[in-house]
Amino acid sequence: MVAVSIDGKKIAEEVNQETAKEVAFLARSHNVQPGLAVLLIGDNPASAVYVGMKSKKSAELGIYSEKIVLDRNATQEEVMAVVRKLNADPSIHGILVQSPPPPQIEEKEIVRTILPSKDVDCFHPVNVGKMLLGETDGFYPCTPYGILVLLEKSGIDPAGRHCVIIGRSNIVGKPMMSLLVQKAKGANSTVTICHSRTPDIASHTRRADIVIAAIGKAEFLKADMVKDGAVVIDVGINRIKDVAAPKGYRLVGDVAFAEVAAKASYITPVPGGVGPMTIAMLMRNAVKACRMQNGI
Amino acid sequence: MVAVSIDGKKIAEEVNQETAKEVAFLARSHNVQPGLAVLLIGDNPASAVYVGMKSKKSAELGIYSEKIVLDRNATQEEVMAVVRKLNADPSIHGILVQSPPPPQIEEKEIVRTILPSKDVDCFHPVNVGKMLLGETDGFYPCTPYGILVLLEKSGIDPAGRHCVIIGRSNIVGKPMMSLLVQKAKGANSTVTICHSRTPDIASHTRRADIVIAAIGKAEFLKADMVKDGAVVIDVGINRIKDVAAPKGYRLVGDVAFAEVAAKASYITPVPGGVGPMTIAMLMRNAVKACRMQNGI
Repeated sequence: MVAVSIDGKKIAEEVNQETAKEVAFLARSHNVQPGLAVLLIGDNPASAVYVGMKSKKSAELGIYSEKIVLDRNATQEEVMAVVRKLNADPSIHGILVQSPPPPQIEEKEIVRTILPSKDVDCFHPVNVGKMLLGETDGFYPCTPYGILVLLEKSGIDPAGRHCVIIGRSNIVGKPMMSLLVQKAKGANSTVTICHSRTPDIASHTRRADIVIAAIGKAEFLKADMVKDGAVVIDVGINRIKDVAAPKGYRLVGDVAFAEVAAKASYITPVPGGVGPMTIAMLMRNAVKACRMQNGI
Repeated sequence: MVAVSIDGKKIAEEVNQETAKEVAFLARSHNVQPGLAVLLIGDNPASAVYVGMKSKKSAELGIYSEKIVLDRNATQEEVMAVVRKLNADPSIHGILVQSPPPPQIEEKEIVRTILPSKDVDCFHPVNVGKMLLGETDGFYPCTPYGILVLLEKSGIDPAGRHCVIIGRSNIVGKPMMSLLVQKAKGANSTVTICHSRTPDIASHTRRADIVIAAIGKAEFLKADMVKDGAVVIDVGINRIKDVAAPKGYRLVGDVAFAEVAAKASYITPVPGGVGPMTIAMLMRNAVKACRMQNGI
């Protein structure tokens, strides 16, 4: 079997077009514009790139966006004050604080200060809890939510299938498990979650109908770790040295793409698979936040 | 192999003794007494029995308890008013609303009205979210928390072992999965969760080091569904007809006890296994709530 490569850029574009239509509808019928505030603390170059991408995508889709940049020496109280001001600002429906903040900042306290109704990253415990309980008036974290949409738009229904997740992070593994197990359309999976303390990860992934690799190890998942015809979703983004590449490195996922693609039925590439979905789902969440705050 | 039968009554008693010591310490050193309010709506006889057990255990351990009984025709607003009053009452540290309430009551709204710091059942989304995120300043739901303690006090460390949970309820299956997967002492399991949409549950349970059955089907788990030496935890409580029994029925779990016990290394009986732990953990949660509210 040679896997279909799932085109995350194309699917993200579909989602973004739906979002742009929603934004236009909200403007036309309700005279409201979704607003997203992105708070960047310090000058981490990767963070600056992500924040720039989010602002640009917002503008493209008609979402009002506000970028707040604080000095890298900002205090906890300064950050909290900005968050509180954004909480109270009716033109802002979604707030996110670009991760990671500098070391003097206690991220957990910041996350808990964001109004849950504006927590479009789904980092606040109340939204995480709603997700696990199967309640739909919160948000889903953007990366696992994007994976659900990738599956759906590729015609892959996880219902009754065995999904094996590698990695138990709070932003991918645990919410992915929570979403896939729900009694809900696009879910209903039997779910296994493996991690650094799992003695023999391959013994689990070999049985999986769908493997989701989010372990942060370059090309960890090899062909002999998946069964024929499996669906393979690669959440990893790792830099590996490549003297032939212009920058001296190239990006690879957590999956050994070429050999796994020869065996799988569907696979996501890196880059261009899961990555583009994350921002698309953030935009969708911002629109949902705007709708809920306006009772639409 | 013939399994060791895990004595839940005895382990619950140990936990209760620890709790009673904590209560005595809080009285002696801080002059505070944990207070638990139990709200019963209507006259469901099973609910009345549970509420009575909770009041009795509170009294035994030195916890102040208050039982509020509302008429079965109580309105949503009446229930909410009681909850708000308890939220504001400094002598009450834990609040629980006995489930299920009568049909005119929207339970989700009641649960969300309980102050999270007093939500000793861990039904509020913010506490559910903290649990999934691995944050320890909330509560754990009493039944899965009790199972962790049963394992610990039986010398069974789930770290690196494969736990297979049958059932995805919000009070057992989902929180059990969340607790066992954490990077934490007494957890660190590889976890699989099966449910009504899993095509072949036996294919999963047969591979498990620890099986946790919470599916609500009498004697569902048979000997041929577990591997030799597995640990089997039975959360079910089902009535089955038994003309020889004084009441015309007897209680059985989700596990076919005799045949599975012949194969397992440890097993919990029904009754006398998981059951007694639930109230013991509720009492522990009430003490934790009191400590947190008093900054102790």
